[in-house]
Amino acid sequence: MPDRKSYHMTPGEFRRHGRAVVDWIADYQERVEALPVLSRVKPGEVRAQLPPHPPEHGEPFERMMEDVERVLLPGLTHWQSPNFFAYFPANASGPAILGELLSAGLGAQGMLWATGPACTELETRVMDWLVELMGLPAKFRSDGPGGGVIQDSASSAALCALLAARERATGFAVNARGGDGRLTAYASTQTHSSVLKGVRVAGIGDRNFRAVETDDACALRPNLLREAVRRDRAEGKVPFFVCATVGTTSSNGMDPLGPIAAICREEGLWLHVDGAMAGTAAVCPEFRRFLDGLDGADSYCFNPHKWMFTNFDCDCFWVADRAVLIRTLSILPEYLKNKATESGAVIDYRDWHIPLGRRFRALKLWFVLRHYGVQGLRHHVREHVRLAQDFAGWVRASEDFELAADPPLNLVCFRHRGGDDCNRALLERLNDSGRLFLTHTVLGGKFTLRLCVGQTHTEERHVEAAWTAIRAAAR
Amino acid sequence: MPDRKSYHMTPGEFRRHGRAVVDWIADYQERVEALPVLSRVKPGEVRAQLPPHPPEHGEPFERMMEDVERVLLPGLTHWQSPNFFAYFPANASGPAILGELLSAGLGAQGMLWATGPACTELETRVMDWLVELMGLPAKFRSDGPGGGVIQDSASSAALCALLAARERATGFAVNARGGDGRLTAYASTQTHSSVLKGVRVAGIGDRNFRAVETDDACALRPNLLREAVRRDRAEGKVPFFVCATVGTTSSNGMDPLGPIAAICREEGLWLHVDGAMAGTAAVCPEFRRFLDGLDGADSYCFNPHKWMFTNFDCDCFWVADRAVLIRTLSILPEYLKNKATESGAVIDYRDWHIPLGRRFRALKLWFVLRHYGVQGLRHHVREHVRLAQDFAGWVRASEDFELAADPPLNLVCFRHRGGDDCNRALLERLNDSGRLFLTHTVLGGKFTLRLCVGQTHTEERHVEAAWTAIRAAAR
Repeated sequence: MPDRKSYHMTPGEFRRHGRAVVDWIADYQERVEALPVLSRVKPGEVRAQLPPHPPEHGEPFERMMEDVERVLLPGLTHWQSPNFFAYFPANASGPAILGELLSAGLGAQGMLWATGPACTELETRVMDWLVELMGLPAKFRSDGPGGGVIQDSASSAALCALLAARERATGFAVNARGGDGRLTAYASTQTHSSVLKGVRVAGIGDRNFRAVETDDACALRPNLLREAVRRDRAEGKVPFFVCATVGTTSSNGMDPLGPIAAICREEGLWLHVDGAMAGTAAVCPEFRRFLDGLDGADSYCFNPHKWMFTNFDCDCFWVADRAVLIRTLSILPEYLKNKATESGAVIDYRDWHIPLGRRFRALKLWFVLRHYGVQGLRHHVREHVRLAQDFAGWVRASEDFELAADPPLNLVCFRHRGGDDCNRALLERLNDSGRLFLTHTVLGGKFTLRLCVGQTHTEERHVEAAWTAIRAAAR
Repeated sequence: MPDRKSYHMTPGEFRRHGRAVVDWIADYQERVEALPVLSRVKPGEVRAQLPPHPPEHGEPFERMMEDVERVLLPGLTHWQSPNFFAYFPANASGPAILGELLSAGLGAQGMLWATGPACTELETRVMDWLVELMGLPAKFRSDGPGGGVIQDSASSAALCALLAARERATGFAVNARGGDGRLTAYASTQTHSSVLKGVRVAGIGDRNFRAVETDDACALRPNLLREAVRRDRAEGKVPFFVCATVGTTSSNGMDPLGPIAAICREEGLWLHVDGAMAGTAAVCPEFRRFLDGLDGADSYCFNPHKWMFTNFDCDCFWVADRAVLIRTLSILPEYLKNKATESGAVIDYRDWHIPLGRRFRALKLWFVLRHYGVQGLRHHVREHVRLAQDFAGWVRASEDFELAADPPLNLVCFRHRGGDDCNRALLERLNDSGRLFLTHTVLGGKFTLRLCVGQTHTEERHVEAAWTAIRAAAR
């Protein structure tokens, strides 16, 4: 082994390679529209092109970038293509990407206030900004007993809500002694699978999860919720948690928060509201009606990494009573003790979620909010909703297609009138074309196509081209 | 509101601002050594400089970068300073930072194979590379029944291990029906607090966690573990999980894996091994003795984001039997169904951890491995160990200081002979100086200073300067 002093990339090399990566990304932004949206590789194809053994000697950075282009790019589904209409979006933007870069460059740890005061204080400020910007209940602000924190995903947020609810309901007995199989949780049949996953993780158990039926608009039916809670209580169960969804994954169904909150209040249940994708719409006052009743919730989350131009991961999670959450998750070993924590004057965000370490994610969110301003965010969210509503109008006016549900915002569920097999074949043909990417769900027992407008650069022409392609493929 | 067509950052603007951020980071790398390591701000000081309301209108990118410099920088503790010797390191490197940038720019989602085949297949390949590179048991490779996945942190890895163990022990009964308060978990008194946190989260309960006493080297005493397990069994408890640590946080204590694994095998317990920081040492064959016995483990993790030049977050987690983990965490709703998943020929990493969404973290790890090569990684890890051992030698040779434990690798626990108050004052004076940052622990009832050598750019001169500063401050 030659006796080299250092294998590190020097700041000078970092400047050079960093510019190359920035340019590569800018080029990617310029050409992504022309790439097949859904990757066409077969299982194992990418892996087969990667050497089976780790490199003994370091390689030039340029060679890695060549492999990104040659090996990885064909193996990617392009979530940042304006022709991406699948799932829910996971959009991004220039300021967010650069915020992520800066966060990586600083390499700061925000687990405790003391390990990175600016990480903590910027996060608190930005989370309070969002309460104001989106018209959320003031109780979620950090200057009262509540507060917000950035989580990696709505899955983790739901888990934290479940845990805090579990402990509130049992006087911290499960933390102390483990569960007894009596706690029961509630959501609708349309609720995201992450809530059931959280129920499992928290040791509640699938059979103690009640999936309440929904109405024709895929919204939870409060009377059935109430009945389920009372039935469980009569049977000796301990109801403790309800998750309501603002914008279900299948169809953007909107659970009625007001009536659900009333039941939770009467029955003493923790109400968590999941607005993962649709929550972003609240930047526009005219779309806030879906959040009516949110003031009755104990916790709420939405994902700027879905529709608010902030690259994954960035889930914003608020609680009305941070003390319960913190008491549920806090453990303070000697090696983390410090004066600031002992003073009680600071927030240590490690006690607000599962991981201990945390990177400086508030930075990208701050960059997004400052780059766009309230005005810019509103403009683009309104545009996306307008485009989806235009598309829904075209479906409504067509003879061959029908809407599967009325689209409240930016997700349109529709199908060809030709039946399930026809729709399945249509979806496959469309996605194979590479010109767009849609996914499906099943609504009312029928195979249904979903078109969600939320990618940052999706414009009128992309939605028009999608509609043209859909009609052509159906013929 | 003026009718602007777009508020997005154009690719051209991205090039310009991206270069500015790259240059800012390169400048930061060049000057970080001169900055006070531990931030000097008081609670609330950063927040007070941030406007109380979100910006109505977008702002120029330059202004955001000015605020990074003026408002945030003084509020940061510099984890990337070569004078950072606190906690465990969370180091980084040029190739890692650029991998993170590229990941953000691509904005790909790796939750399913189908949503980003290259994300999944690169991750699988890189995790297999690490098994070879670090001499880990072959059963952790993905071409058998095992496999590896990137988690955000060792906390989440421990939680996933606990969950899979919980379900294996109960025939998936807790997933189905919730817990009954009988499961018991074991680790040492020196185990990281994240394991107890996981015990809480998983609904096991603090009182069902046994913190087994350690020997003089802070290593778990196997005979006490065996006794604890048998005592619990005799009392009707159901022992199911042991966490052994390779490099405890306080003092880098090394639990004896062989004897612990033997007990786990006899008693049918899941053995999880946490090598969060020290695990990186296994890139050098001469440091692998601490992993003797790892072939008896069911799961293992270490954090490239601590000592392997990969910015947070990047925890590598392996299991010997992926089927148990997947069955524990998998739920497949209609909207995630796809042909590749149904074929069984692919890995869907969402079933290997708590969150659903996941970013392309394998990219930065791949960049690090290719940039350094095995040779480069070994060189720098050896250097860090050598520097720590040199420092330990100086402490040993001094009249005023003593070692609190023999340092197995790169963490030195030491104290002034003057007693707790003296050491507390010494630590405060050193950290207030801004010239270095150390943290403390308590060992054998005594306040103890910790010096961990692991920041990417820490060289001999920094460790020498630390020793000089420590002696000067003590006088």
